[in-house]
Amino acid sequence: MKPSIPKGTRDFLPLEMARRNYIFNTIKDVFSRYGFSQIETPAMENLTTLMGKYGEEGDKLLFKILNSGDWAGGLTDEEMLAKNSVKLTNRVSEKGLRYDLTVPFARFVVQHRDQIQFPFRRFQIQPVWRADRPQKGRYREFYQCDVDIIGTDSLLCELELIQIVQDVYAALGINVCLKLNNRKILAGIAEIIDEPDRLIDITVAIDKLDKIGLENVEKELLEKGLTQDKIDALKPVLLLEGSNEQKLNSLRTILAESEIGLKGVEEVAAILNYCRQTAVELNIELDLTLARGLNYYTGAIFEVKALDVEIGSITGGGRYDNLTGIFGLKDVSGVGISFGADRIYDVLTQLDAYPQSLQATTQILFIPMGEQEQLFALQCVKQTREKGIAAEIYPELGKMKKPMNYADQKHIPWVAIIGENELQNQSGMLKNMTTGEQKMVSVGEIVEYCK
Amino acid sequence: MKPSIPKGTRDFLPLEMARRNYIFNTIKDVFSRYGFSQIETPAMENLTTLMGKYGEEGDKLLFKILNSGDWAGGLTDEEMLAKNSVKLTNRVSEKGLRYDLTVPFARFVVQHRDQIQFPFRRFQIQPVWRADRPQKGRYREFYQCDVDIIGTDSLLCELELIQIVQDVYAALGINVCLKLNNRKILAGIAEIIDEPDRLIDITVAIDKLDKIGLENVEKELLEKGLTQDKIDALKPVLLLEGSNEQKLNSLRTILAESEIGLKGVEEVAAILNYCRQTAVELNIELDLTLARGLNYYTGAIFEVKALDVEIGSITGGGRYDNLTGIFGLKDVSGVGISFGADRIYDVLTQLDAYPQSLQATTQILFIPMGEQEQLFALQCVKQTREKGIAAEIYPELGKMKKPMNYADQKHIPWVAIIGENELQNQSGMLKNMTTGEQKMVSVGEIVEYCK
Repeated sequence: MKPSIPKGTRDFLPLEMARRNYIFNTIKDVFSRYGFSQIETPAMENLTTLMGKYGEEGDKLLFKILNSGDWAGGLTDEEMLAKNSVKLTNRVSEKGLRYDLTVPFARFVVQHRDQIQFPFRRFQIQPVWRADRPQKGRYREFYQCDVDIIGTDSLLCELELIQIVQDVYAALGINVCLKLNNRKILAGIAEIIDEPDRLIDITVAIDKLDKIGLENVEKELLEKGLTQDKIDALKPVLLLEGSNEQKLNSLRTILAESEIGLKGVEEVAAILNYCRQTAVELNIELDLTLARGLNYYTGAIFEVKALDVEIGSITGGGRYDNLTGIFGLKDVSGVGISFGADRIYDVLTQLDAYPQSLQATTQILFIPMGEQEQLFALQCVKQTREKGIAAEIYPELGKMKKPMNYADQKHIPWVAIIGENELQNQSGMLKNMTTGEQKMVSVGEIVEYCK
Repeated sequence: MKPSIPKGTRDFLPLEMARRNYIFNTIKDVFSRYGFSQIETPAMENLTTLMGKYGEEGDKLLFKILNSGDWAGGLTDEEMLAKNSVKLTNRVSEKGLRYDLTVPFARFVVQHRDQIQFPFRRFQIQPVWRADRPQKGRYREFYQCDVDIIGTDSLLCELELIQIVQDVYAALGINVCLKLNNRKILAGIAEIIDEPDRLIDITVAIDKLDKIGLENVEKELLEKGLTQDKIDALKPVLLLEGSNEQKLNSLRTILAESEIGLKGVEEVAAILNYCRQTAVELNIELDLTLARGLNYYTGAIFEVKALDVEIGSITGGGRYDNLTGIFGLKDVSGVGISFGADRIYDVLTQLDAYPQSLQATTQILFIPMGEQEQLFALQCVKQTREKGIAAEIYPELGKMKKPMNYADQKHIPWVAIIGENELQNQSGMLKNMTTGEQKMVSVGEIVEYCK
């Protein structure tokens, strides 16, 4: 029996874990400085919570948990013989695995509304599961890392998320640009071409502009039933050029007749103004083709791209005015972004930008040569750990080759060999594993070297 | 629609999360100082990996994932009409949720044996899922926190785990005692009463001595087919009294004829000797009734109890000589323990022993009174965060009551109100939320106060 794991899932070995922890800890540090609190929700949610929230395709991609016990016993012969997987699923499964952190968060806010303080600033870092076809860079289990402020429509929240993006990527050493749009501007555009009900078709299509090009987007809009003259009217808006300021000015003219469109323009202008006031250095670009294919955004839409690596969006989000409405709590506005930990991992790997120190989980390995030496080494390792230094004692006596190999492969920077001579001097032969230099020093000095 | 979560699962709100993180971080810090590396495995494992590893009862308690797509389409009419849930499960489910961290770890070691260095020192902190009937203190999703050294039979590893127990509970401020036993001693006892094949029956029964009492254990052993004279022969061993040293001496006599029994005695003696040599202060008690009902232990068995709170075991583990054998890698000895995070949480709650600082995720809230003040407050909050202090700006303008309430309920220790007067002086009215004292100070001074 050759052990394996389900396709699309991963084991994380020590170095991968250290790198992932580095990413998560960097992000958490920034979140904490901005006063966000962490929450967690269960891996399993009731299917009534999850179904219908991610579209028909999403319903299929949910991992469903088989009911416990005699789940088949209560089914009728008719149901069984029909072999209708969709219908039977409703009868044999009540729970599913979390598909994202957004819907569980909405459920959480409604369920605990009396225990939390609004505006509620939360972050959440947990795995999600999707029964997608696995492919390069796409997994069936992956972490999401969401930060949201819910319960206020203040645009200061948009500013804070932009500042967080800036701080996180500065700390990680990744050059990024942030693309900014506003759903209200898109709504305004749909309005001025007199197709307000087509907003979703239009945004879904233009979201693909980057990927499939203008020609294919036009084709798609034609297929959706938009006339050629409407599409022509759209084009200048989509291909708007110039600085953010120039784009906003053009939009003020184009959208002069659309109240919602102008509101979107002024929201973007206010956010950019806050950024100037607080000296945000991030490269921010107003990009009207940005729609993120998600229907629940109602205001700002964000997307972050790495500048030095060819990869998709590494962070994204936006403002939503009715996330909790599906669970019965209306008119709660919020805004949030999600950091794509797996993609950030790939970016840092490609840039080779991880701190060197992540390689070594242990600073020093003590290698005693005999039983008396072992007892002394136990004192040494204890004292070293008490100083907060990660230390090990090689647990077996014998040839030097094994422990030296072990230290080498684990990238342990220092070893201290303790033989008869060192024992007599109550010291260790400290070896620098990088340079090969060695010298006999006391325990106290060993600690100093390892610091 | 009233939102809810599956029974036996939990949401963690900010304060609970902060407390859980405090426990996990304390444990992780100790693990790291001892040179352990973190790994993670997927939530879902193939059912071939999980089934048959936890006994018949365990198989039932595994959460199984329904296959994706048309899972019912390929089943025969006969299968469907039989409605045999156990057989059908094999046909409609290939994956299950992790039931513990031990079996996935064994699978991991075998699968990645060429990528890891032995002795492999790993820790793993992840949730596990069991379809147990939920009750007080028992959940269907809970975290395990395991630390193991695999690939050596050196008793120094047992010492290190004992040191880790001491360090973790000292850091958390929980008084504990550690109970120690050795499976080889139990085997020796079964041998001298001439029932070597009954070892498992005997250990499972005596494991219950604490819970059901001597009389009921005797009854159970009789039911299992042990004769009364054998049970009588067992009794003096089980009810052994005195210091660890006295118990070991008695056992040396009792087990004189059992090679394996004596080996167990000498292992315990060696571990206790290492503890003395390294000045372990932990209260360690040799307890022959300790068996932990787990069949895979082959040497040391550990269990840790909190002294000041009535609760079961909060940490436990032992040595196993063939954990990876089920996945085809024989003769790899390891030893490990598992910290029960949920129970530790309950102990700290009952002792009221959490650091006060966990209450506040934000150190200071800036409250601007108008738009100009807001722009100045944005500078202040930025500078405060740059000093590593968790800071917020209240995002909405208006009455003082809302932000003051917010600060109060979030246990934010400081607020800085910025009105016209403060703006003119480029300062803030800093208020200590505990004492109510307030005074006008500059941003630089605010940072100093909050530190």
